[in-house]
Amino acid sequence: MSSARFSSGVAACLLTVIAHGAEPLAGAALDEARALRARALADDTAYELVRSLTTEVGPRLAGSPGDAAAVAWALDKLKALGFSNVRAEPVTVPRWIRGEARAEITAPWLQTLAVAALGGSVATPAEGIEAEVVPVTTLEELKAQPRERIAGRIVFFTARMQPSLDGGGYETTVPPRGTGAAESAKLGAVAMVMRSAGTSVSRTPHTGAQRYVDGIPPIPAFALSNPDADMLEQQLASGRPVRLKLSNTSRWDGEAQSANVIGEIPGRSHQQEVIVLGAHLDSWDLGTGAHDDATGVGIIAAAAKLIGESKRRPKRTIRVVFYANEEFGLSGAKAYATAYKDQIDQHVLGLESDLGAFRPYGVAARVAPDKLPLVRTIQSVLEPLGVPYLGTEASGGADVGQLRKLGMPVMDLQTDAGPYFDLHHTANDTFDKVDPRLVQLNVAAFTVIAYLAAEAEGGFGRLPVASETAQ
Amino acid sequence: MSSARFSSGVAACLLTVIAHGAEPLAGAALDEARALRARALADDTAYELVRSLTTEVGPRLAGSPGDAAAVAWALDKLKALGFSNVRAEPVTVPRWIRGEARAEITAPWLQTLAVAALGGSVATPAEGIEAEVVPVTTLEELKAQPRERIAGRIVFFTARMQPSLDGGGYETTVPPRGTGAAESAKLGAVAMVMRSAGTSVSRTPHTGAQRYVDGIPPIPAFALSNPDADMLEQQLASGRPVRLKLSNTSRWDGEAQSANVIGEIPGRSHQQEVIVLGAHLDSWDLGTGAHDDATGVGIIAAAAKLIGESKRRPKRTIRVVFYANEEFGLSGAKAYATAYKDQIDQHVLGLESDLGAFRPYGVAARVAPDKLPLVRTIQSVLEPLGVPYLGTEASGGADVGQLRKLGMPVMDLQTDAGPYFDLHHTANDTFDKVDPRLVQLNVAAFTVIAYLAAEAEGGFGRLPVASETAQ
Repeated sequence: MSSARFSSGVAACLLTVIAHGAEPLAGAALDEARALRARALADDTAYELVRSLTTEVGPRLAGSPGDAAAVAWALDKLKALGFSNVRAEPVTVPRWIRGEARAEITAPWLQTLAVAALGGSVATPAEGIEAEVVPVTTLEELKAQPRERIAGRIVFFTARMQPSLDGGGYETTVPPRGTGAAESAKLGAVAMVMRSAGTSVSRTPHTGAQRYVDGIPPIPAFALSNPDADMLEQQLASGRPVRLKLSNTSRWDGEAQSANVIGEIPGRSHQQEVIVLGAHLDSWDLGTGAHDDATGVGIIAAAAKLIGESKRRPKRTIRVVFYANEEFGLSGAKAYATAYKDQIDQHVLGLESDLGAFRPYGVAARVAPDKLPLVRTIQSVLEPLGVPYLGTEASGGADVGQLRKLGMPVMDLQTDAGPYFDLHHTANDTFDKVDPRLVQLNVAAFTVIAYLAAEAEGGFGRLPVASETAQ
Repeated sequence: MSSARFSSGVAACLLTVIAHGAEPLAGAALDEARALRARALADDTAYELVRSLTTEVGPRLAGSPGDAAAVAWALDKLKALGFSNVRAEPVTVPRWIRGEARAEITAPWLQTLAVAALGGSVATPAEGIEAEVVPVTTLEELKAQPRERIAGRIVFFTARMQPSLDGGGYETTVPPRGTGAAESAKLGAVAMVMRSAGTSVSRTPHTGAQRYVDGIPPIPAFALSNPDADMLEQQLASGRPVRLKLSNTSRWDGEAQSANVIGEIPGRSHQQEVIVLGAHLDSWDLGTGAHDDATGVGIIAAAAKLIGESKRRPKRTIRVVFYANEEFGLSGAKAYATAYKDQIDQHVLGLESDLGAFRPYGVAARVAPDKLPLVRTIQSVLEPLGVPYLGTEASGGADVGQLRKLGMPVMDLQTDAGPYFDLHHTANDTFDKVDPRLVQLNVAAFTVIAYLAAEAEGGFGRLPVASETAQ
């Protein structure tokens, strides 16, 4: 940390004090937050948790043996780290079992492609499916096609995700993943393949959730790695008919029991009021879910643990929630929202870590408007971490966002999504990609926010309740 | 190109002229070389050849259907590009057929690993092989082990290749790949796995050739991707016994016919004297052999074609040789050396492209010492490409180097080996990784060297004949 940056942080803090008079945070609380920040930057708890979860549990797709092992692992770790009220709250999850997926171009030029079944894909017949490929860019373009162009063919979604700091390109490539197979089936397609919704240039496809619609027979759905989508496009560019042969043996196997794993650092005075720190315990199965979301698990656990070790514990309780099955339907987040609906007013603020452990570049807050000065005070302590205030566009993330819809304020630590989407949902999401220094930066930011949020007089107000909740 | 760089190139050239008086290269030849350099930097022949070979042929492991398709492709392309004396000279190659390889850690913590059989590996029994893992760093460390530590176990070579500009780290990690299985078998090991000889951080193992020794029963040999070698090391670090289960269905299938494909740009006066431009037509099978060595094929063909289009053709013949089976025993290079041994004195200079199409950073020359001023003159025309003279440590490469051993002088264009060894022998060696601008830079350098070498009065002398040749 440069002294110049430190001074600017102090200056921002002083300006806040001057501007707002009676402060929800005492100077001693801010001092303690700064001390926690320094401790977090030298703490390896999170990194070691990530190492342990990826090495000793590995992939943990909802309903798989790894998922059950992760629940046991989490209970052990939270207890060992000194958390209180450690518990597993049962969550029913769907169980989909990946088989073997294969793809090859059979004409005009034989090539074997790197492919992964999308989550939830049905199997092909044992002999596979071979058909001509029809490229389309978007769902809208697909829907505009005449049925005779699509029927009996394999639809290929070609849209490429563009890398960006905020991951904005992901939102534009996820729709074909989610419903591309269902929409293709409506027009009589026999299978769907897509260019991965992700930016990896390796031959490691990005899997992810997709869903069928009732009443339309499901067709198999696949993601090609970006280089393999390029190969398919190269062959299509020849102007000759391009044929693909696809096979897949994945299947559904009913439901399974998983759990949200919860632990708490009790507050010193307002124990029933909680700051929720969320991450998800499940992962996709191609890698070991290092950045998605073992780092989140490690970051929130380490932040809470550091706060628990403080000699000046905050007023409110820090509740760490490791959510079940984020990837395949937000099962844990929905179960938590249902279970705690009656206590939603005691959920003072929520914060989620589910974008890996990359460089934080800002913080956003969705809180009652009159509480924004408090957010700015908290942000002033993040300043030396290179974390400016970015405004009010905070979502709370996929899991914690379910509580936002019920009125709970949220803050988002925004982190560089560029490298995250190189790894996301691929075989490459492994421990070797985790930088301990970046983990510490995230832990430091979470520690500061959680500590000050748990301490601040008066909290963050409430948000309007969304008309449609926890879906 | 900056004018400052251009001026320094001119200055270097003038200095050479001043220093050496009677020049082997006329000013008109140097002017033509500069004009060719400019044309090469705007020419897409090489890039389009790489696109075509990777898309329309793809992987071309010696003896495979892709290998045969590549020979037909090469004959067609050389004819279409206007080469003379286009021919396929038969080469017998060994045929190894890759099957399915699998690896999983079964204790202490179950994990599936990304693995590839090394080239030439025998199969495991159908039920696989499961045994405890013994890590060693080097062949020397292995050889120092007592038999009881190795017998019945799986040897794991842990040495990691360090990236570098000149690829020097490769040489230190190749020995375990070549003979690690054989040496392990001598001590009773049941299988060998190695950390890939390569720098990819993707879960894409680097395959490559390995060989057994007579009299020792062969054991299966595998490469783990770097992240998977990390996983194995993480588990070994627990101090608990680590067990691997390996399976592989690859097999040998006798020999096959392949060919060196040759085409020429005849010289205007000394047609029987040749400048050899070499690259290899075969590739490993996991990717499409884009940088290894489709780019080499494209670069040398494009360079020769540009020279053929020159209104001022050089005196000597440019002979392009696409070698068969470089990867698995240099079959084509040995066959060529045998077939042309009697004409070796007509081989004036050789140059090979087999390090992908990355940034050239210098040129080295192994020529008769009194011919080094000529090399410096040639290098002066490379100066605007950012190619300084790097000395006399030139090898000619794996294929063309076989002719160097017979006395033919060689020059090496040295190119950045860092990114090359991220891709080398992996599934990621695909067309999307090829930068057309870097291809052009390489073509420009090859064009200049080949043109001036074919034109220079008196040639480059001869090298001492190596005591052991063409092996």
